[in-house]
Amino acid sequence: MRLLLINPNRTQAVTDAVLAAARAAARPGTALRAVTGRRGPRVIASRAENAIAQQEVLELAAQHAGEADAIVLAVSLDSALWACRELLDIPVIGMTEAGLLVGATLAGRIGIVTYGARMAPLYRALVEEHGLGARLAGVEALDVTPQQTFDDPAAVRHAVLAGIERLVRRDGAEAVLLAGAAMASMAGALQPHACVPLIDGVACAVALAEARHALGLPASRAGSLAPLEDRDVSDVSPALAGLFRGGSAA
Amino acid sequence: MRLLLINPNRTQAVTDAVLAAARAAARPGTALRAVTGRRGPRVIASRAENAIAQQEVLELAAQHAGEADAIVLAVSLDSALWACRELLDIPVIGMTEAGLLVGATLAGRIGIVTYGARMAPLYRALVEEHGLGARLAGVEALDVTPQQTFDDPAAVRHAVLAGIERLVRRDGAEAVLLAGAAMASMAGALQPHACVPLIDGVACAVALAEARHALGLPASRAGSLAPLEDRDVSDVSPALAGLFRGGSAA
Amino acid sequence: MRLLLINPNRTQAVTDAVLAAARAAARPGTALRAVTGRRGPRVIASRAENAIAQQEVLELAAQHAGEADAIVLAVSLDSALWACRELLDIPVIGMTEAGLLVGATLAGRIGIVTYGARMAPLYRALVEEHGLGARLAGVEALDVTPQQTFDDPAAVRHAVLAGIERLVRRDGAEAVLLAGAAMASMAGALQPHACVPLIDGVACAVALAEARHALGLPASRAGSLAPLEDRDVSDVSPALAGLFRGGSAA
Amino acid sequence: MRLLLINPNRTQAVTDAVLAAARAAARPGTALRAVTGRRGPRVIASRAENAIAQQEVLELAAQHAGEADAIVLAVSLDSALWACRELLDIPVIGMTEAGLLVGATLAGRIGIVTYGARMAPLYRALVEEHGLGARLAGVEALDVTPQQTFDDPAAVRHAVLAGIERLVRRDGAEAVLLAGAAMASMAGALQPHACVPLIDGVACAVALAEARHALGLPASRAGSLAPLEDRDVSDVSPALAGLFRGGSAA
Amino acid sequence: MRLLLINPNRTQAVTDAVLAAARAAARPGTALRAVTGRRGPRVIASRAENAIAQQEVLELAAQHAGEADAIVLAVSLDSALWACRELLDIPVIGMTEAGLLVGATLAGRIGIVTYGARMAPLYRALVEEHGLGARLAGVEALDVTPQQTFDDPAAVRHAVLAGIERLVRRDGAEAVLLAGAAMASMAGALQPHACVPLIDGVACAVALAEARHALGLPASRAGSLAPLEDRDVSDVSPALAGLFRGGSAA
Amino acid sequence: MRLLLINPNRTQAVTDAVLAAARAAARPGTALRAVTGRRGPRVIASRAENAIAQQEVLELAAQHAGEADAIVLAVSLDSALWACRELLDIPVIGMTEAGLLVGATLAGRIGIVTYGARMAPLYRALVEEHGLGARLAGVEALDVTPQQTFDDPAAVRHAVLAGIERLVRRDGAEAVLLAGAAMASMAGALQPHACVPLIDGVACAVALAEARHALGLPASRAGSLAPLEDRDVSDVSPALAGLFRGGSAA
Repeated sequence: MRLLLINPNRTQAVTDAVLAAARAAARPGTALRAVTGRRGPRVIASRAENAIAQQEVLELAAQHAGEADAIVLAVSLDSALWACRELLDIPVIGMTEAGLLVGATLAGRIGIVTYGARMAPLYRALVEEHGLGARLAGVEALDVTPQQTFDDPAAVRHAVLAGIERLVRRDGAEAVLLAGAAMASMAGALQPHACVPLIDGVACAVALAEARHALGLPASRAGSLAPLEDRDVSDVSPALAGLFRGGSAA
Repeated sequence: MRLLLINPNRTQAVTDAVLAAARAAARPGTALRAVTGRRGPRVIASRAENAIAQQEVLELAAQHAGEADAIVLAVSLDSALWACRELLDIPVIGMTEAGLLVGATLAGRIGIVTYGARMAPLYRALVEEHGLGARLAGVEALDVTPQQTFDDPAAVRHAVLAGIERLVRRDGAEAVLLAGAAMASMAGALQPHACVPLIDGVACAVALAEARHALGLPASRAGSLAPLEDRDVSDVSPALAGLFRGGSAA
Repeated sequence: MRLLLINPNRTQAVTDAVLAAARAAARPGTALRAVTGRRGPRVIASRAENAIAQQEVLELAAQHAGEADAIVLAVSLDSALWACRELLDIPVIGMTEAGLLVGATLAGRIGIVTYGARMAPLYRALVEEHGLGARLAGVEALDVTPQQTFDDPAAVRHAVLAGIERLVRRDGAEAVLLAGAAMASMAGALQPHACVPLIDGVACAVALAEARHALGLPASRAGSLAPLEDRDVSDVSPALAGLFRGGSAA
Repeated sequence: MRLLLINPNRTQAVTDAVLAAARAAARPGTALRAVTGRRGPRVIASRAENAIAQQEVLELAAQHAGEADAIVLAVSLDSALWACRELLDIPVIGMTEAGLLVGATLAGRIGIVTYGARMAPLYRALVEEHGLGARLAGVEALDVTPQQTFDDPAAVRHAVLAGIERLVRRDGAEAVLLAGAAMASMAGALQPHACVPLIDGVACAVALAEARHALGLPASRAGSLAPLEDRDVSDVSPALAGLFRGGSAA
Repeated sequence: MRLLLINPNRTQAVTDAVLAAARAAARPGTALRAVTGRRGPRVIASRAENAIAQQEVLELAAQHAGEADAIVLAVSLDSALWACRELLDIPVIGMTEAGLLVGATLAGRIGIVTYGARMAPLYRALVEEHGLGARLAGVEALDVTPQQTFDDPAAVRHAVLAGIERLVRRDGAEAVLLAGAAMASMAGALQPHACVPLIDGVACAVALAEARHALGLPASRAGSLAPLEDRDVSDVSPALAGLFRGGSAA
Repeated sequence: MRLLLINPNRTQAVTDAVLAAARAAARPGTALRAVTGRRGPRVIASRAENAIAQQEVLELAAQHAGEADAIVLAVSLDSALWACRELLDIPVIGMTEAGLLVGATLAGRIGIVTYGARMAPLYRALVEEHGLGARLAGVEALDVTPQQTFDDPAAVRHAVLAGIERLVRRDGAEAVLLAGAAMASMAGALQPHACVPLIDGVACAVALAEARHALGLPASRAGSLAPLEDRDVSDVSPALAGLFRGGSAA
């Protein structure tokens, strides 16, 4: 199958990390392609940046879906996930969504580790939006930045392991999701030092996209997912405008 | 005070209706200005259109906030509401948010009437996002379109009144929010025929924006609302880019 | 407009503080009047005192509503709020209700600071009753008494600021409601020293009452708010008995 | 043991019915005494009447608790239940609380039948207050009045049985609580015609009060139930004033 | 009345402790009999052991229910409680269920103390299953084992009292349930040293079983409790097979 | 990979249907083996039968896990799912769990169709246990039996399609899970006639088990999943007893 990874922020290094994680997780028969945001935020780490990024998710999906059998959104806030599901008939999977759903088969309650206190409420809201609030042990917002992951990896690893420990001891987490592409890429290296399974949302999203593809279920077109027809949206690419008019992405 | 109304869709008639509703509700000392989306969806009636509209909300806010004391988002999905709150220090109020908050002082449980079955789950999700799920009686999705409001107003009014009746009898609604600008504009005319208060979110948002302005509370800059600094966002207006770098909108 | 403040406890100093806070928040055209409980608890700081105070709220409302366009309940447990709404057609707003509703436009989650551990469960229950449990960050019960606010204000301010800090750091509060009239009166003085907006419920209630008055919405008379008729209640004032028989308060 | 039943409304016929139901349920060694409200509402069927009745509950409790080992509140809104628990060391049990707690050992989800649409939201709120919302199947508000129970009992029985049927078929109720003293008194006669157990809250409250008395557990005096001391409440009986000052009811 | 206590684990000492606690709580007219698991886990302290124990609960119930008027499940996970209610017409009460229901008449929120961190999530899930999550203050998992209760009782008592203190101070517990038979048996001795009521589930279950017996309510046979007929279950005792075929246990 | 399907009831026809569904969904490299309960209920359609079946699930898992890389529980109540996860280090997936998790990537809210009113509360409880209550649209209990699926398939298909229609129109389901092995086997044939995706839990469980195997995540051994050691369980197979003593299933 052909799997498209969309990283809507403009940081190629993140796309590279995500593609590497995806490759490690993908089955032999899965052909991977990753695309990067061309406009909008360099990093998505606030609601305002997330708002800007949504159109770029749709643009990248519209332009590349024709050559894909499934899409993984490689952005930790699962930006425009359900908007994609309105427009496209192929499976679209969000990385945090996937981490939570796979985690639900591993652990009663899942903890989330992330960078910086401002993101904690956004992850809590995202988990609630996915209807999985009862499975959330807690969110541990570390006092480190994504940049430090590259500058001082030892310090960040130490901080992440300490955060995991707090989620397990204090909040009863039985597995921990490392949120965000930079942090998720540490999962493999940290696993031997952690007392619970560490979940990388990108890997889980690849596996779920493969599973959805194999199952061959049709897209839902009822309720909020009823077909869009004749919607008039300006200043978007012809490919995206076509989807709003009810065309297919193929 | 100077109050800016943002209608992010490209339909001037909606802006006109919203401005009229706002004028009817505003205090004498409130100067109103309404702006309309220049790009993106003509109408916002799906998650995908809402995703596209978010940047335009931020653009209009960034470009006009300098001459405003408060902003009302005249879009029934409260698009980019919290993103605006991250970027701007003046009060920003969403019309559905306002209808629910004012309605909470009127009624134990509030019903929502809207156009079309596809919108019902979006309003339910929005109410949950506002943390007000316990105050929602139900959502009644009418089998009429916004366009019919203009083409066959008598039929639409009949449908709306029947929907209100079902929300009251079946779901225990004690007040009803008419969601969306077109429907909200009927509130005044329908009120004499309805058995419960009919809530127009635009009017409520104007009143709440005036209240917030009068109270003079500072914007929160803690947690998820901590100041943004040095964020790099491309392909946006200088005004918006400036807000992402931590500048003020004045 | 004519705004009536009801303080159902028998402490005139509280009424005075509340009236001062209300005056500071009210618009020029708002004429304020405050009345004090003549019987019942000197202070309302338990469920039992709150139970006793409810009739006095209704008595004061019944006797003075005829000369008022809206009522603010200046009692932090919002005592008899919905009972007033059953009996009166003018807007009635509770101070904690108002603080939460206005706070909901400021902050994702709101903290509450109060005096003494016995009040924390009562505020939690009140927030749940208002259906806003999802917006509550936490309740911080300080080990100080209202009396100390007057005797040792510096110590109380120090304790309040420390409580705010804990709500912000530990619980993720993005705004804090200072519950109770004595503590709310400190909001202005403490704001410069606090890292989040401090909410004074009385000021918010005044602003919301003005907003509700300006909107001119009818009272709901459906469901639990259906008109009362021919109810027979003894040992109450003629004004209150009249409301129970279905008369108006004018 | 000596069991006191408090009916805070001024309708002796209700007290008589309640006392009869209690006698039928009580153990041989239980001495029953029932007292009736002397002031306030004749019937409690609104929040406003409930507000007025709360003081009378406390007065009757304060004056008679000295000769009782436990108290049952024979009022379907469990008026002032936790206020009594603050003031008194003996067990105090509410009739709707008891019906729900006993019902929880009988049925996954419990339905409630009551008189009139205005009461349905009050029962829903009461069930939520007791933290038992997940066990509520639904509330069926019949279009009959308590008075009709005496004037046209056959019609009322027919309506009640139809309501029970709807709760079972439509809402999945596995037991039904007949709310309010008048309706509860029909439980025995209707049981043979009903497809689920019919719960009379008074009988359940008597049984739970006996159980609590037998268990000999101390009253909780922590958190919101910490001892009251030196509270100053005017215009109450000396017995009640004494409890507010921290004295015992004996 | 004849009350059967079922301890499904194979530890006679637990049965003895439970029977002693039950005797202390039972009324003079209650004849007690306790039976012990003959197969399965020696101790039930995991989901896997609980899974194994469920059949033995049903076997013991089927074989002895004919000589009983009510059953108490003396196993802290309330194993097979609702399965028993499907099969038997007499009251069946679980010990943790009973502790929570009785505790709900004592305290706003209830804490639970138990042995070992692995049990905390199981008790939380059990409380949720009973629909009483809103009444749970917290679960305190002590770092001691049941065996230590016998080997080093002073150390265990010290740990339990410290756990109670944390539940009260940190989580707002107003009563504490000592979960599990070994720990529950300490309730009487620890009560004088505790700041809140200590709840022994066995005692509460005995009292509730007596209450249910006195009330004489029929078993529910609607919804999930509809009569079983002609169910074919192999490798069970004739008594149990008979119940599955729709026979009575008498 | 080697995938073991466990059908704990004694009906070989169900095992055959499940194996066929699994084969249709499995990847080429997946070797399937299905085992059937040897003792206990012929059909699991009540809590009591489910209680009996739990040990057989564990027995079959213990005896066959050594030759498997993952296990699917082909029983619609996900019997003993978490008990298996305590004992085994390989992935174990429940069929209803899997249907819900996969369905969550397809639809905002999922409906469930099942046989008979007595099962509806059990599925609701199961969905809540999985923490996915917010994603459940409703449960439609058809008035047909599993046996009729074979005797009068046309009638059953008609009933199932009508139930799906009600879930979509009335409850807003955007996908529907056909619960239970017999009904799930109709998914493929009914899909062309249904307006939403029809989910077969067995197929989803196979795909999820393959995904979990590919991801190679370790089992969680924290919290409620901490290693079991030296547990003494009698009357079980040596293989199962070994797992309780802390041995591996290999």
